[in-house]
Amino acid sequence: MCGVIGYYSDERDGFADIVNGLFQMQHRGQDACGVAVSDGRRLRLHKGIGYVREVFGHRPSDDFAGRLGCGHVRYPTQGGNRPENTQPHMVTTLDGGILALCSNGDIVNYWGIREWLEARGVDFEGSNDGEVLAKYIAWLHVSEGMPLVRAIRRLQDDIRGAYSAVLVTRERLFAFRDPYGVRPLSFGTDGKDWIIASETPALDIARMDFVDEVGPGEIITWDEEGMHRLPHPDIIAARRGRVDTAHCIFEHIYFSRPDSKAFGHLAYDVRKRIGAWLAETDDVEADVVVPVPDSSNAVALGYAQASGLPFEIGLIRNHYVGRTFISPEQSRRDEGVRLKFNPVREVFEGKRVVLVDDSIVRGTTSRKLARMVRGAGASEIHMRVGSPITAHSCFYGIDTPSRQELIGSRMTLDEIREHITADTLRYTTVEGLKSCVDRPEGFCFACFDGKYPIAVAEEKRMELVEAGT
Amino acid sequence: MCGVIGYYSDERDGFADIVNGLFQMQHRGQDACGVAVSDGRRLRLHKGIGYVREVFGHRPSDDFAGRLGCGHVRYPTQGGNRPENTQPHMVTTLDGGILALCSNGDIVNYWGIREWLEARGVDFEGSNDGEVLAKYIAWLHVSEGMPLVRAIRRLQDDIRGAYSAVLVTRERLFAFRDPYGVRPLSFGTDGKDWIIASETPALDIARMDFVDEVGPGEIITWDEEGMHRLPHPDIIAARRGRVDTAHCIFEHIYFSRPDSKAFGHLAYDVRKRIGAWLAETDDVEADVVVPVPDSSNAVALGYAQASGLPFEIGLIRNHYVGRTFISPEQSRRDEGVRLKFNPVREVFEGKRVVLVDDSIVRGTTSRKLARMVRGAGASEIHMRVGSPITAHSCFYGIDTPSRQELIGSRMTLDEIREHITADTLRYTTVEGLKSCVDRPEGFCFACFDGKYPIAVAEEKRMELVEAGT
Amino acid sequence: MCGVIGYYSDERDGFADIVNGLFQMQHRGQDACGVAVSDGRRLRLHKGIGYVREVFGHRPSDDFAGRLGCGHVRYPTQGGNRPENTQPHMVTTLDGGILALCSNGDIVNYWGIREWLEARGVDFEGSNDGEVLAKYIAWLHVSEGMPLVRAIRRLQDDIRGAYSAVLVTRERLFAFRDPYGVRPLSFGTDGKDWIIASETPALDIARMDFVDEVGPGEIITWDEEGMHRLPHPDIIAARRGRVDTAHCIFEHIYFSRPDSKAFGHLAYDVRKRIGAWLAETDDVEADVVVPVPDSSNAVALGYAQASGLPFEIGLIRNHYVGRTFISPEQSRRDEGVRLKFNPVREVFEGKRVVLVDDSIVRGTTSRKLARMVRGAGASEIHMRVGSPITAHSCFYGIDTPSRQELIGSRMTLDEIREHITADTLRYTTVEGLKSCVDRPEGFCFACFDGKYPIAVAEEKRMELVEAGT
Amino acid sequence: MCGVIGYYSDERDGFADIVNGLFQMQHRGQDACGVAVSDGRRLRLHKGIGYVREVFGHRPSDDFAGRLGCGHVRYPTQGGNRPENTQPHMVTTLDGGILALCSNGDIVNYWGIREWLEARGVDFEGSNDGEVLAKYIAWLHVSEGMPLVRAIRRLQDDIRGAYSAVLVTRERLFAFRDPYGVRPLSFGTDGKDWIIASETPALDIARMDFVDEVGPGEIITWDEEGMHRLPHPDIIAARRGRVDTAHCIFEHIYFSRPDSKAFGHLAYDVRKRIGAWLAETDDVEADVVVPVPDSSNAVALGYAQASGLPFEIGLIRNHYVGRTFISPEQSRRDEGVRLKFNPVREVFEGKRVVLVDDSIVRGTTSRKLARMVRGAGASEIHMRVGSPITAHSCFYGIDTPSRQELIGSRMTLDEIREHITADTLRYTTVEGLKSCVDRPEGFCFACFDGKYPIAVAEEKRMELVEAGT
Repeated sequence: MCGVIGYYSDERDGFADIVNGLFQMQHRGQDACGVAVSDGRRLRLHKGIGYVREVFGHRPSDDFAGRLGCGHVRYPTQGGNRPENTQPHMVTTLDGGILALCSNGDIVNYWGIREWLEARGVDFEGSNDGEVLAKYIAWLHVSEGMPLVRAIRRLQDDIRGAYSAVLVTRERLFAFRDPYGVRPLSFGTDGKDWIIASETPALDIARMDFVDEVGPGEIITWDEEGMHRLPHPDIIAARRGRVDTAHCIFEHIYFSRPDSKAFGHLAYDVRKRIGAWLAETDDVEADVVVPVPDSSNAVALGYAQASGLPFEIGLIRNHYVGRTFISPEQSRRDEGVRLKFNPVREVFEGKRVVLVDDSIVRGTTSRKLARMVRGAGASEIHMRVGSPITAHSCFYGIDTPSRQELIGSRMTLDEIREHITADTLRYTTVEGLKSCVDRPEGFCFACFDGKYPIAVAEEKRMELVEAGT
Repeated sequence: MCGVIGYYSDERDGFADIVNGLFQMQHRGQDACGVAVSDGRRLRLHKGIGYVREVFGHRPSDDFAGRLGCGHVRYPTQGGNRPENTQPHMVTTLDGGILALCSNGDIVNYWGIREWLEARGVDFEGSNDGEVLAKYIAWLHVSEGMPLVRAIRRLQDDIRGAYSAVLVTRERLFAFRDPYGVRPLSFGTDGKDWIIASETPALDIARMDFVDEVGPGEIITWDEEGMHRLPHPDIIAARRGRVDTAHCIFEHIYFSRPDSKAFGHLAYDVRKRIGAWLAETDDVEADVVVPVPDSSNAVALGYAQASGLPFEIGLIRNHYVGRTFISPEQSRRDEGVRLKFNPVREVFEGKRVVLVDDSIVRGTTSRKLARMVRGAGASEIHMRVGSPITAHSCFYGIDTPSRQELIGSRMTLDEIREHITADTLRYTTVEGLKSCVDRPEGFCFACFDGKYPIAVAEEKRMELVEAGT
Repeated sequence: MCGVIGYYSDERDGFADIVNGLFQMQHRGQDACGVAVSDGRRLRLHKGIGYVREVFGHRPSDDFAGRLGCGHVRYPTQGGNRPENTQPHMVTTLDGGILALCSNGDIVNYWGIREWLEARGVDFEGSNDGEVLAKYIAWLHVSEGMPLVRAIRRLQDDIRGAYSAVLVTRERLFAFRDPYGVRPLSFGTDGKDWIIASETPALDIARMDFVDEVGPGEIITWDEEGMHRLPHPDIIAARRGRVDTAHCIFEHIYFSRPDSKAFGHLAYDVRKRIGAWLAETDDVEADVVVPVPDSSNAVALGYAQASGLPFEIGLIRNHYVGRTFISPEQSRRDEGVRLKFNPVREVFEGKRVVLVDDSIVRGTTSRKLARMVRGAGASEIHMRVGSPITAHSCFYGIDTPSRQELIGSRMTLDEIREHITADTLRYTTVEGLKSCVDRPEGFCFACFDGKYPIAVAEEKRMELVEAGT
Repeated sequence: MCGVIGYYSDERDGFADIVNGLFQMQHRGQDACGVAVSDGRRLRLHKGIGYVREVFGHRPSDDFAGRLGCGHVRYPTQGGNRPENTQPHMVTTLDGGILALCSNGDIVNYWGIREWLEARGVDFEGSNDGEVLAKYIAWLHVSEGMPLVRAIRRLQDDIRGAYSAVLVTRERLFAFRDPYGVRPLSFGTDGKDWIIASETPALDIARMDFVDEVGPGEIITWDEEGMHRLPHPDIIAARRGRVDTAHCIFEHIYFSRPDSKAFGHLAYDVRKRIGAWLAETDDVEADVVVPVPDSSNAVALGYAQASGLPFEIGLIRNHYVGRTFISPEQSRRDEGVRLKFNPVREVFEGKRVVLVDDSIVRGTTSRKLARMVRGAGASEIHMRVGSPITAHSCFYGIDTPSRQELIGSRMTLDEIREHITADTLRYTTVEGLKSCVDRPEGFCFACFDGKYPIAVAEEKRMELVEAGT
């Protein structure tokens, strides 16, 4: 995952709005961050390893300001946190920076495109998807003389995968999305200036009103003439009959903030609906509903309201857990989970507990939580999961492990229940989940049902398979 | 505020348990932290400015370990975050470190004691209460030859104020508390080793079972002979008839974690009872109950359960807010509050909202929150406060501002309501609050009713008065 | 001033040779340094503020190596020590780095060239001469499609001033010099690999034998075909009759190491000849000859040998003096000089001293030294100066102050003598100095006689004039 | 080796004088440095790893000042550059710092004294001689109630070895030396304030006039009553007949600055006399005399003046060589020497060279220099050494290697000559060296003749023996 933001104004400096917006999306990436700004004449870049408040607690320099720009927060991934993989990526020539781009998502045919560019002499600094996007556009634009909008359109034809991107030149801002609209990208205005962001709270903090999502395959530009929307031709065709998007349902289940609106839904609402569906299809006898905070709060609340059972905050989360901490071997086992969550014994003592989590990936955390809750006195543990069994890897930008590591791909429901030591275990079904969104056919459920909407090259799969062995 | 921890074992290294315990109490102080450990022969100290994970992400050195020790997290105060004010304070002689002490609380006659010591040649590095405690004991012990237990008892006679302290020598651990027991201090064991801490989650993370609180005025020692409890003579007398403690009620309202047990109560329970009291004595017509997270979650939940109104998480808190961030002047107004909280419009739209907060100090945050909630569509705002009107300063360790800055000391209830732009406003009454704890006569309510249990010297009052003008 | 180096090999990594060479030229610039290397496919750059041993004590990364490359040490100038002014300057496009250049010297028509390039869209990061050279060549090459040799030739036509430059692309190394050959640039080989450097000790450290100097206006290239020398057409013409170079005589007087060979002379030899000339034309009666170390050692030795007077090391220099030190106001007056030099009283006591310095610029140091030497017991001080009266600013790369600050432009010889409190004062004459080199007509003596060989634009003069008021 | 300084004034702050003095003695230790100052009431310490200009480029804090104090520069030794081994060593109690001490020299019975103190409960932080001195005095003073002068006198009886020490309390300054006066220690005044230092240039920089050396075994104190000199009783006795000092002759040969006066001689003079002795007893036919700079400059000058041969600066030294640099394996062989020295070919070409060095320790540098000089064209190399054959280790503070590593202990004169590839080789004889100082019986020549004036415990010898195998 990652988070992107764009800003455009005819006159006002947007540095603070970009930084505050990144700060609101910090949960999408704590690894590194960067901002590129232009004052209309010169494009400048600053990026660094660390939290937004560390890298941008102050302006990089007094004159680092601009009336258009873009920004990025980067998610920690296995490939190491090297400076050359941070975004935005800026392409420079003798004329100075000509464009800077940042993107959220994962490209399926990364190596094919990269090799094609390298064969044409393009140099790569790192191994980041955003760099391929930036340099593909730059190559088409600089070497082929293609106007930027045409270059982006060509990219949308040639590059397969998920990308919600913002691109800035000295004078124009561009936002575009892959034709499947896998990752969210919304924009808003205060009537004068504009913000484009992965999540809507980045608009809220700048007091911008939500206008719309960038359409799947759409390109939008902002410049002195104002905003131009350029819907994708296929999408225009599609609107006449066929719907062919692949919005990531996991954004609603886990990744987005509850106050984020994406794909036509508020995450908080979708989560409460899932909770209600779980309650309505349940017949367990229990005393109390407890979420694994914070991502499952709304699911548990939905369950509690639908079931009539009391909602209690029985697990207290420590928000100071950060990227580095005392290494596990110095401490006792289960520490990772225990440092993060502490049970309120009085909530659990002698109770039949409905414990609600958003998903089960490897099963290790669930097992530790169940042990912790039972140790706090729970007489019965009924685990309820706000998503279906996760049995397939994601190739579009979510950092799921290889299939072998997914407990859902290795065990039956009852084996999982036994492994995590719950008394009962229920997942949301794919059908149940579909009933919680308005246009389920427009979403991607591949991590649950294995139906990949965008073809994934075999080597990409193998990569993850091998990473997992 | 601050948090302290102590550790004692006959053999096992306690570094990880001390650090993990401090980490669980990080909310009590993000300014600085420190740890002193002894292997039975040598006392060593490491402290630094920053979060626990920054200062103790790694052992200071391979051999920084010990089977007894103490630790501290320091709350940011106005006096500046200077290294010489960090704790523990270690007293050193030719023989190396002889004792290290850390404390939570505030001494009322600090200057009297300090001047008395300075007149006897004692040198002070900083202006911290803990240093006075450490050096008073060290002076009595080293210069007067007084055994440590007697020196601590003498300190309890001479030093007025709040202190929950842990002291470590090369071979013994001591825990003691002022005779009023203002600040919490509990201890637990796994049957073999011991932990003493300001908050019980520091016991939980080390899998220690809670045993008891350190009694008001009590001294407890741990050494190779085991644990010795030495209740205060006055307390023993008091138990025969009179109760004379002054537990800080604000620990339950705001400062402690909800999963902390102190003064015989779990904070989560006290908060839910307050919420229930507010609901039971209320007759407002409303649609939804929303807490200002996270400190008011339990109060709002108690209110919702007692009133039957739905509980909703309508304000989303950004947990990445830290000590430093982009300065306000670079951004738009109200940013401090907006960076921290974002409203979920769908929860508020057209609703009559019971907005629950734990307390109102200056009134500025409440006013901004009310504006934000109304901007998110609330038709009515009924502010309910989980504590009485805060009208008096605290001299025992809570960082309240001077009286003039307390909105409760300057305005009537209706003026406050108007100032914060709520439709209705209700506080918990002192009597109501008392009904939420078992032995209300053992608590201090001075910040609400101005009845100070420990006499405060006039200059101490003036200090704060002047700081406020 | 500054120092440059280039390296070319068909196969061997030259990183250590480049760094050691820079280290041998550290006296030409302690401000910052940088290295660009290519492995034949990819050009990479690393530069930083600080001494060579600080910036290149270790390889920037394991794979920072190359079989060709260039390096630079930068002299501290008034414009501030900003990263964007450090060299080499690398020009980057989509294809990665296409060329890196570093230069020693000063361009007279800097602003004219820069504005011409800016009008064509070229972006400038800093205000450094080398950046103008790099981007002028890059623009001609990239935008006009001009081969690099032709672009350099064009640069030599258009850009006036002093530049001894090394340029590296992915596969070729270039060295070139302005048509007047103001700054030195020599090259050597070990029979296989090549080094080009401002000073010959950079060849010595790599055990390369000196081959020749890069001719004035000459371009030399090294690539897989070997070395190609491309003398300047005008120079070829000149060789048939006219000599028109303007070698900086100050390199021999002060700037170069004594073991550097430049412009056909060893600096040590030139200095000894100057000393001999001073002695042979002198009739002072004295007891001892003492240099101001280290730059005047050879001049004083030449004086002593020619005069028969004993040479003594009467001033001890502290070599730990660096860029930053305890600020003057914290200490007593004259500290700058006293921290650097300490007199050996026994050498001076009761003696008539010939005190030899290489030059007198502002006169302040000479005055302090004379006072110090007299304080150490000298009965007479006869100051002898290894250069003529410095009365004019340099516009070709030596950091002389504005005319007003030059004591030689404001005072008569006798006023200077009185100012610096010497008993007698003699400078080398311009004619005398000319007699110490073989082809004096090929040298520039402008700082002494004001005859500027390269026309200096009026605004350039004014710049310095204003800087001095 | 190391350098110490002390400062006393009744009123003036001495921070700048202490720091400038340390700076003048930087050659005695580049590893670390420290300063302790007292304003008469409070003793404060600041020390750090690095050069003086790095650690004390600025005052540690605005109020770090004092009218008395001491300072130290530390020589890099094998034991690692750990903070706990830096000096001054301060002893602290409840009253704050009671004394700070720094010392130059090496204690022979270090472990005996340390174990005696440890048995009495004294704690040691590091493994530094100065710490033993400081804590021995402190223990006698604090635990035994002994006045400081008596404690120092007791130390002089009990601790064997070399120590020239400065000790500061809040109100008094002490300087003292071992009874053999092995290491230098001088003091001076400007008529009002006082400086005590290892080398006299530290007096010069502060414009203090040299008064005397601290006598062997003498204690001197400065306080509000002025200066008190307390000669050692044995020394007083000695003056009546017997002389029994053991001044380190190596200070004059190599370690001290040439402008330092110690043991009644100026180092520059002693070195010139040695050079003259070498010339007068020589019959070699040669063309030129060249020193290995800078330590041999005066010896070579003495040789040249006595022999009538021309003195030339044929080896140019690079003064930027520092503690860390590009690691040898990255570069070609002999780099260490070549980075430091570069030959001036024109000086050597076809010449019979008298190459003068101060000493030969392992022989590796001499061999590399001879190869370098021959490579520069010398037809004959006549190595002349300003000291006798170094054949024994030093136990009194000079960092000589173990005997096995000393080429003088393993080879005959002719073998050495052959090893270093010189045509002829002559050392100064012990008798010759003795003729260069006024009272040779007062000096230690143990590294040449093995006659150790202070008994060295067997384990101390073994330590070095083992370190060498």
